[in-house]
Amino acid sequence: MVFAFSAAQLIAIVEPLRVVGATGAAVTGIASLGAAAPGDLSFLGNRKYRAEVAGSRASVLLLPADHEGEPPPGQLWLLVQNPSVGLTRLCRRIEQLLWPKPAPGVHATAVVAADAVLSPEAHVGPLCVVEAGARIGAGVVLQGGVFVGARAVIGADSWLSAHTVVASECVLGARVRLQPGAVIGSDGFGYDTVKGRHEKIPQVGNVVLGDDVEVGANATIDRARFSRTEIGEGTKIDNLVQIGHNCVLGRHCLIVAQVGIAGSTTLGDYVVMGGQSGVGGHLRVGSFCQVGGQSGITRDLPPKSTVTGTYALPLLLEQKFQVLRGRLPELFKRVDQIEAQLGLRPAE
Amino acid sequence: MVFAFSAAQLIAIVEPLRVVGATGAAVTGIASLGAAAPGDLSFLGNRKYRAEVAGSRASVLLLPADHEGEPPPGQLWLLVQNPSVGLTRLCRRIEQLLWPKPAPGVHATAVVAADAVLSPEAHVGPLCVVEAGARIGAGVVLQGGVFVGARAVIGADSWLSAHTVVASECVLGARVRLQPGAVIGSDGFGYDTVKGRHEKIPQVGNVVLGDDVEVGANATIDRARFSRTEIGEGTKIDNLVQIGHNCVLGRHCLIVAQVGIAGSTTLGDYVVMGGQSGVGGHLRVGSFCQVGGQSGITRDLPPKSTVTGTYALPLLLEQKFQVLRGRLPELFKRVDQIEAQLGLRPAE
Amino acid sequence: MVFAFSAAQLIAIVEPLRVVGATGAAVTGIASLGAAAPGDLSFLGNRKYRAEVAGSRASVLLLPADHEGEPPPGQLWLLVQNPSVGLTRLCRRIEQLLWPKPAPGVHATAVVAADAVLSPEAHVGPLCVVEAGARIGAGVVLQGGVFVGARAVIGADSWLSAHTVVASECVLGARVRLQPGAVIGSDGFGYDTVKGRHEKIPQVGNVVLGDDVEVGANATIDRARFSRTEIGEGTKIDNLVQIGHNCVLGRHCLIVAQVGIAGSTTLGDYVVMGGQSGVGGHLRVGSFCQVGGQSGITRDLPPKSTVTGTYALPLLLEQKFQVLRGRLPELFKRVDQIEAQLGLRPAE
Repeated sequence: MVFAFSAAQLIAIVEPLRVVGATGAAVTGIASLGAAAPGDLSFLGNRKYRAEVAGSRASVLLLPADHEGEPPPGQLWLLVQNPSVGLTRLCRRIEQLLWPKPAPGVHATAVVAADAVLSPEAHVGPLCVVEAGARIGAGVVLQGGVFVGARAVIGADSWLSAHTVVASECVLGARVRLQPGAVIGSDGFGYDTVKGRHEKIPQVGNVVLGDDVEVGANATIDRARFSRTEIGEGTKIDNLVQIGHNCVLGRHCLIVAQVGIAGSTTLGDYVVMGGQSGVGGHLRVGSFCQVGGQSGITRDLPPKSTVTGTYALPLLLEQKFQVLRGRLPELFKRVDQIEAQLGLRPAE
Repeated sequence: MVFAFSAAQLIAIVEPLRVVGATGAAVTGIASLGAAAPGDLSFLGNRKYRAEVAGSRASVLLLPADHEGEPPPGQLWLLVQNPSVGLTRLCRRIEQLLWPKPAPGVHATAVVAADAVLSPEAHVGPLCVVEAGARIGAGVVLQGGVFVGARAVIGADSWLSAHTVVASECVLGARVRLQPGAVIGSDGFGYDTVKGRHEKIPQVGNVVLGDDVEVGANATIDRARFSRTEIGEGTKIDNLVQIGHNCVLGRHCLIVAQVGIAGSTTLGDYVVMGGQSGVGGHLRVGSFCQVGGQSGITRDLPPKSTVTGTYALPLLLEQKFQVLRGRLPELFKRVDQIEAQLGLRPAE
Repeated sequence: MVFAFSAAQLIAIVEPLRVVGATGAAVTGIASLGAAAPGDLSFLGNRKYRAEVAGSRASVLLLPADHEGEPPPGQLWLLVQNPSVGLTRLCRRIEQLLWPKPAPGVHATAVVAADAVLSPEAHVGPLCVVEAGARIGAGVVLQGGVFVGARAVIGADSWLSAHTVVASECVLGARVRLQPGAVIGSDGFGYDTVKGRHEKIPQVGNVVLGDDVEVGANATIDRARFSRTEIGEGTKIDNLVQIGHNCVLGRHCLIVAQVGIAGSTTLGDYVVMGGQSGVGGHLRVGSFCQVGGQSGITRDLPPKSTVTGTYALPLLLEQKFQVLRGRLPELFKRVDQIEAQLGLRPAE
């Protein structure tokens, strides 16, 4: 890593409630309690690891305010309300050191259409393409090898990582982040089968991402057949997720890796979908629903449903099923025995 | 959107059987019956939404020929045999306006090998790479940032979207469409484990896509270990699908998003695989099979099988199972009770 | 294909134990026994296809040393200890012909930071980006359109295919292979939800790939929240796999296509995960575990576990369940009948 923080600098960044002990070491790394070596900072993020504090070789520890005891010589304790939040503060500073916002301007190798509208405060990195009529807002970063199609709009302070694609007509709000390889605005999957051939239904709508949306690496969001595929403000989408055409996702949803949502389905606000789960097409998933990993949703879900399994059952029932399904062979044997005793069928 | 159609233009495009009412508004958008505003065109694609026609604020409606009633003042009805097909006609026109075929020629920033064979009618967009010996047919569009490997062949009128990769030796038929980020010809996943190390088995075959094949965004099709991985004419593959090495897919299949097909498996013609389903390696799935979403196929399927579930059961049996599996806890209690009454085991 | 081998050349490459028969044809293709035509080489890789040897039209056959019989006129048999290994030897030679290592040097269109450290023995292909402080080892190939972020390290003789991304700070060992579109070092998926908004937790760690790791097309490996996401030496990862932040995978694992591994999970050595399977976060999967396709792992697995299903059961129990679950409707009817006979409930 490319940082070195003195104790005084750490205290200025983390703003602890209380400081105990001291270290002369500069902090140049972060590690878990057990893995940390001198020169590392560590933290107690989960109380179940409390016993590991005593043996940690870290030079600096972030601990909850009520943590008892004394640091060994050469170790500094920063006592804070929430060590995880304290760590995030430090990591934000590291992030700025690692990846300072690149200076505005257009790299000499970028290919920008004459009538594209670029904010003078935007950064267009090497080997990017910005097609005709596209608009790039202030503070936007196109990292490198980014493709922005005709008439697409990239909202202020958005960050498009290497090799992302925003296809023609699509609209990104402010502060959108695209991880490498994400594709916004591929064609929806729609065909009319005429005399045994699948004729492509034109997909002439677009994709609209709200403010503060994040889309993961190599995830794909299809453009609408007409009108728009919409992702609400603050929704976060993980790697390799597929969102079909004409879907409408609400605000502040969390869509974990490899989820698939088929076309024309709507999700309310604050929906959480576990990894590898799927939702069929033309369904409605209410706000605050929680869907377990690998689940398959095949009917509408009322708000605040918590479901899991394929096809998804209410969580408690699915858990019972999961316990019992391994006992199904035993159950069959028991029923065989009953039936034999009752003369319903011969014993085996 | 970038279009505005007068009533007369719409009539010329859609060629309705009958026209009722009139509107002075130009149509500049398309929306569903409920969402449409003045200036929009809407349509009755599914009769279950019939009741929404009366309240729609659209300026123009596409309706089935036998739809009864009268439009309100200022609304134009175009009565057609199939509103969905009528909409497709209109959208094809919009598609041409949005994305006219780019002019033939090679962008100054493209890197084209001296011995590549390009049709003078092909378009090679910015920052594309065309390696040695590749052949690019007439009417082909390489949108931008496209990579075509050595000796690959791209058939006439194919459209390769931004950031697609066609690796060395692979062959695409005519009118193939690749959505952004699709990879054709990555190495198959094959290793010989020798003394505890996985030694790579060279993958020296290629991928052959038939005419009119479409491959979705960030989907991947592996090259064969030897000979070829084949996708039959007219087969459509959705986003994030994985096709293993040496697979042979028939003609006119529909492979929905996130499906995985393991190596050396063959599919007949007109197979439909639902989203997130998977097929094991070295299997045969007969023509006209339909596989439900998230299903797992672990044995050969005769033609016209309709299966779903993991591991897949015939559809009707799987549906019964899905209904009953949530009643498994109840069944266990009932058997406990029977056994207690019969003295087979003590009551709990 | 771009090769033609005489019988003498084939004998020199394969080094058979014994040679029977003769052919004047040059070998210009490889095909299965049934599909082969004159000019092809074929092989008996699996004894169950033995009966197909007699009818094969291949000009050359690789057969096991104990194969009995005589070739027809014009067919050459090369008898070897292991035909599959013999084929691999031949395919290695073909691989060298198809894809000779490109000459060292930096293509004129590549964008390389002034302070990047490139071995003079490295090849940087067209339209690649190498950011500040990156280090590229001897014998490395960046094929084309490859993005290497700031301070990333690419070990000797690694091969990065078209459109791959190695994000800032990430470290690749020697002889690493990335298939097209693979992303190493996307941000982990982590947020603190504060007053109803998901605030991004900075992801300031990196990804470290050991020697001889291979990563499939469009697969994604997230950088750590802090410290590192690690993939052990010799582990092979297939297409469209997702590895979450802070995961630690051991050595010589095989991770088949579309697998997802959630954050902070550790795998031992020689773990095999079947296609589309998933592992939850913060779990431990012991060395030599085998996980079936589409399985879902939700608890720690001791070493050498063989599991399958969602949620995964031991393999034998899961197989029983899979057989019996289709008989669940029948079981319910039988219990209904018993209960009726016992007067526990009225007959239907």
